[in-house]
Amino acid sequence: MASVIKPAERVRKQKRDVWSIINEAAALAPKQPIVNLGQGFFGYNPPQFVRDAAKSAVERVDCNQYAPPKGRPSLRKAVADSYSPLWGKDINPDTEVLVTTGANEGMLSAWMAFLDPGDEVIVFEPVFDQYLSNIEMPGGKVVYVSLLPPPDGVVKNSSAAEWGLDMTALENAVTPKTKMIVINTPHNPTGKVFSREELLAIGNLCVKNNIMILSDEVYDRLSYVPFTRTATLSPEIANLTITVGSGGKMFWATGWRVGWLIGPEHLIRYCTAAHTRICYCGVSPLQEGFADGLYLADKTSFWDESKKDMTRRMETLNEIWDELEIPYCKPDGGYMILANFSKVKIPEGYRFPAELEDRPHDFKLAWFLIMELGVASIPTSEFYAEANWDQSHNWLRFAVCKNFDVLEEAKSRLRGLKKYIEA
Amino acid sequence: MASVIKPAERVRKQKRDVWSIINEAAALAPKQPIVNLGQGFFGYNPPQFVRDAAKSAVERVDCNQYAPPKGRPSLRKAVADSYSPLWGKDINPDTEVLVTTGANEGMLSAWMAFLDPGDEVIVFEPVFDQYLSNIEMPGGKVVYVSLLPPPDGVVKNSSAAEWGLDMTALENAVTPKTKMIVINTPHNPTGKVFSREELLAIGNLCVKNNIMILSDEVYDRLSYVPFTRTATLSPEIANLTITVGSGGKMFWATGWRVGWLIGPEHLIRYCTAAHTRICYCGVSPLQEGFADGLYLADKTSFWDESKKDMTRRMETLNEIWDELEIPYCKPDGGYMILANFSKVKIPEGYRFPAELEDRPHDFKLAWFLIMELGVASIPTSEFYAEANWDQSHNWLRFAVCKNFDVLEEAKSRLRGLKKYIEA
Repeated sequence: MASVIKPAERVRKQKRDVWSIINEAAALAPKQPIVNLGQGFFGYNPPQFVRDAAKSAVERVDCNQYAPPKGRPSLRKAVADSYSPLWGKDINPDTEVLVTTGANEGMLSAWMAFLDPGDEVIVFEPVFDQYLSNIEMPGGKVVYVSLLPPPDGVVKNSSAAEWGLDMTALENAVTPKTKMIVINTPHNPTGKVFSREELLAIGNLCVKNNIMILSDEVYDRLSYVPFTRTATLSPEIANLTITVGSGGKMFWATGWRVGWLIGPEHLIRYCTAAHTRICYCGVSPLQEGFADGLYLADKTSFWDESKKDMTRRMETLNEIWDELEIPYCKPDGGYMILANFSKVKIPEGYRFPAELEDRPHDFKLAWFLIMELGVASIPTSEFYAEANWDQSHNWLRFAVCKNFDVLEEAKSRLRGLKKYIEA
Repeated sequence: MASVIKPAERVRKQKRDVWSIINEAAALAPKQPIVNLGQGFFGYNPPQFVRDAAKSAVERVDCNQYAPPKGRPSLRKAVADSYSPLWGKDINPDTEVLVTTGANEGMLSAWMAFLDPGDEVIVFEPVFDQYLSNIEMPGGKVVYVSLLPPPDGVVKNSSAAEWGLDMTALENAVTPKTKMIVINTPHNPTGKVFSREELLAIGNLCVKNNIMILSDEVYDRLSYVPFTRTATLSPEIANLTITVGSGGKMFWATGWRVGWLIGPEHLIRYCTAAHTRICYCGVSPLQEGFADGLYLADKTSFWDESKKDMTRRMETLNEIWDELEIPYCKPDGGYMILANFSKVKIPEGYRFPAELEDRPHDFKLAWFLIMELGVASIPTSEFYAEANWDQSHNWLRFAVCKNFDVLEEAKSRLRGLKKYIEA
């Protein structure tokens, strides 16, 4: 029966998201199973101590019922206890922490809490695509400020620190309608860790203009260089800042959907109001898993081991770029590698599905890698506004949070690229 | 430091929700622990077979990572397999089922998917309060049509079936802007199970006027009378209907946040698009718990036992109303009892917090019960628009999904009401 119901404009105008396109292409590829380095899910289990805590919670009556909307006391306290030393101040678990249904829903709560239609939100491009639709849901307008790519990144290896912040462009983007600036450090997809000086410049601009900061720090436990937390820069900046955290990212459990917001009471209270209305409360038993996890990780060497472990995975994959002489950008944080595929030439006349016709070249490169080599990655033009697609320069993003045998298989398959690379 | 950031209008204008008021009053009451029959969380664990399935999933790598946005294949298939016989048609698990982060987020997804600002949504009053803010988030306008209360419900016992549907009022509420009618059967808080004739009248009105139906059937496994599913009435009605289900309600695990939408592909696809943007995906390992749960429940006598069990809990509590001669309304579905407290006289000069001053009398009755007797319930004026508070008639809602010793303790405490009841 034909549909007679018109969807809302907010979904009608949505293009298909990259995750669906890549995951479905991966399912169709001739070479199965695909080596999927596209989406940033982990190829291995969360640590046993986190799994044990969750399983134990599933046997407790109170842990199986609604959590308080602001989160289970155990996890709020664990977050406050774990972050207070890092912030150099006592975080109040009752008023300054909100547990959310993943970092994603946490950020949506912040936008729902503070954006009236027409309010502007500045984001740094390349930008995690999920922000955009979330900002637009409450009627916010996304304003893009580009991070300047590493000057020679297309022809030789670079460092994530070379992605440059253009403060003049940022200052010029501020208008009387600017309500918020979104910072993401460590940054997805570039792996950039914003320096203290960069963050101070952004923070002081916000204080001067009374602009909120949403600081997405979900990869905070995976910074390979000294890490500055936005909320620690000054009391004035802290007063305007909501920090986003993710249990799933730090404990290798992206499917648990437990994250949190930390910030001053006068901001968190409205996020809580919005969150209560979006999903009422977060996932109860799995909050206990992360509450125990934070205590045990702090008491042991888990954070250090976790960084060393991820560094080894990055080094493992990066050998193939050196071998193929494909330039890549070494991340300072997180688990994403950008490699530049400008040198890879797709044979003339190669057939792509109609869906890719109006997408930039990197979508075609990603498709080609899936179909010909059986390796999935994410085209970074997805992280640019359509008007700025020409800036995306054929970077493909590879997630290395996968088993070592999978990374070795990826390398082996990627060797097949040699014949498509121009000398 | 004072706040200089203004919250969005949608949260600024929100009154405090009843759940927060009642839960916090309960925490302050002199008689601890309180007997909390307010919120509809279960006082006991989900069945062992559901807990075991969830714990086993926590040890599986794929179950700990992002689920597909539309839900894990296991749960989509389990929902389709369990509901297809009840619907008398084959439900397609790939296109006609969407797994959501609780029924709440599922309904929000439907409203985000279909409501443009100014679109009108008709709800039946008394109405579950969470609907209202969720409809307003995407800019929808709530239009209230009252269910007519049992004619003598204030003075003698009544049945949930006596809550009457006024079709003329409903027809008069339809305008060219009407996009959707929300049905809730079994209905919260009245316990009304809409009859086939009532649903057909509503459904045919929708077909005639091209209006969608969102049928919230989260208590579908707890109907004590023959239950009609809206989507089974006719192919034309099914084509306009999205049905809402809840794993948490059927398996006593309100904190797991796993629900689903079922409907025709041309509607579910847009709900999926909105859901993907609200929270990306649902809770992965707990979806497995409910997937196994549905198969095992269907293979055993779980649904029947579950109804018998809840009936016994209702009968246990209802003894006290008979003893006190407080009129109550016998539900045909769900686990909420409405009792009418018009006869209970609060002593003159009794002090209430300032927060309750502008709330109707039932809020004061609920407060009085918490503070004087140590029993929490929910004032049903919360389920009415402010303009219609005079229709709420001092009904208090009691959730009976609690342990038998708790229900006995509630009765013992409620006996203390005798001295406040007029002869």
